[in-house]
Amino acid sequence: MIGRLAVVGVGLLGGSVALAARAGGVAREIVGVGRDRRRLEGPLRAGVVDRIATDVEAGVDGADCVVLAATVLANERLLESIWGRVPAGALVTDVGSTKRGIVAVAERLGSGRPLAFLGSHPMAGSEKSGWQVARGDLFRGATVIVTPTDATEPRAIKGVTALWEALGARVSALDPETHDRTVAAISHLPHVAAWALVDAVGRFEPGALAFAARGFRDTTRIAASDPPMWRDVLLANADAVRASLGAFRAALDELERLLAAGDAAGIEELLARLKATREGLA
Amino acid sequence: MIGRLAVVGVGLLGGSVALAARAGGVAREIVGVGRDRRRLEGPLRAGVVDRIATDVEAGVDGADCVVLAATVLANERLLESIWGRVPAGALVTDVGSTKRGIVAVAERLGSGRPLAFLGSHPMAGSEKSGWQVARGDLFRGATVIVTPTDATEPRAIKGVTALWEALGARVSALDPETHDRTVAAISHLPHVAAWALVDAVGRFEPGALAFAARGFRDTTRIAASDPPMWRDVLLANADAVRASLGAFRAALDELERLLAAGDAAGIEELLARLKATREGLA
Repeated sequence: MIGRLAVVGVGLLGGSVALAARAGGVAREIVGVGRDRRRLEGPLRAGVVDRIATDVEAGVDGADCVVLAATVLANERLLESIWGRVPAGALVTDVGSTKRGIVAVAERLGSGRPLAFLGSHPMAGSEKSGWQVARGDLFRGATVIVTPTDATEPRAIKGVTALWEALGARVSALDPETHDRTVAAISHLPHVAAWALVDAVGRFEPGALAFAARGFRDTTRIAASDPPMWRDVLLANADAVRASLGAFRAALDELERLLAAGDAAGIEELLARLKATREGLA
Repeated sequence: MIGRLAVVGVGLLGGSVALAARAGGVAREIVGVGRDRRRLEGPLRAGVVDRIATDVEAGVDGADCVVLAATVLANERLLESIWGRVPAGALVTDVGSTKRGIVAVAERLGSGRPLAFLGSHPMAGSEKSGWQVARGDLFRGATVIVTPTDATEPRAIKGVTALWEALGARVSALDPETHDRTVAAISHLPHVAAWALVDAVGRFEPGALAFAARGFRDTTRIAASDPPMWRDVLLANADAVRASLGAFRAALDELERLLAAGDAAGIEELLARLKATREGLA
């Protein structure tokens, strides 16, 4: 049970942390923190948070747990601003899609003032954004990847893991580098592919969009994801995203080579192998 | 009302034509036609078809309407085999995902013996295949693209359009070239991207598959599509698929260029434009 939970950035993920914490009786008081008052008034009126604070530093005063839920680069700056103000005994985590950057910031700050920080990445979300689409059951059954390092305090690992489990999630640990490569492959690269598919129709045969059916819609659903959030994710993970793009281009090249050669057996074999891999997803 | 409907190839699409025709009271008798008796016994026992024929030529004897529903290259060969046996007054169509090839075969055969052929492509389907997943409502609300040319008999256009409308679909017409470019952009290219995404994970970070969440699953659902069907689609539409791949690569290049330059504003602007396009889908 947390006394005061401060959620910095009350959008889909921050709002869902607040709603899930309330539904689970996990926190006594929930503070919504952000620089823009107008963006906090909705969640306050809707009862997603109990009170709001627009001074980020003051917003974490007296908090037992702080969850950073802005865009990934903003989270890094926020962590820097609040580090000196967070109570010594508090847990600090974030919900960003990349982890090397914020973990590095935490390690640098932690060498000056130790604090129980653990990076988190809930593998839950949506192409929709904003607190209006937040849900108290968003994390139920979802995987949250946490990214401890040798410098992480054991109480951070214990406390943040317990928090996510209380919100209904399963917790897995990866080091920050493996995490960032993992999400480049299964999340960032698929987003890039979805954007490029939408773009390609416009470049190749714009009228075709009128005929888009379920296959196109599912494949490109995530192309409607929040641009500022994803701008930051792509920039923060640029090297891993570009490396995964290299693997993607090599995969496209192989298929195109078979196609150019008219290699029917080779195409069928490749497609059968990839079908089996896709169907192997639990 | 059709007296005898012959469905050649009783899989997802052929089986759904049979089920929808029966449900709509569109055909008095439905014959399932194919070379392999074992693959027809299931649909016969399940009542999807009334009788079966393994001699393809004889299977269309006395038919008022013939629907070819094998893979696209098989459909072209089948059309050639049955052309001389189909009754003069019958309608002939197919449900293949590419249209230039079969329309060219029909025009060549039609110059010898006129027959009411019109190419069709129902924009309905699934990554699942086989008559077991066929549904009588598969075409309800779906778009069927038909591809008439100057050589198409008016009674073919009228009759085949009426057939699809009776099965619940909306019918749109495109010339075969525009059709094949259109489906390259909104169907074949997304399949290629989905296969390449699955492939790229294996090449880049194989362990990442264990963390695949909804975004990856939706984006790659169609990577589980039927390999022999798609082998034929890719080969039959290879030039258009490769041209659309060129547009896709150009789109990937643009995103990667912005990423390499660290152009935050450019990335956000591009993502916002593509989000608007994606959200503009009816």
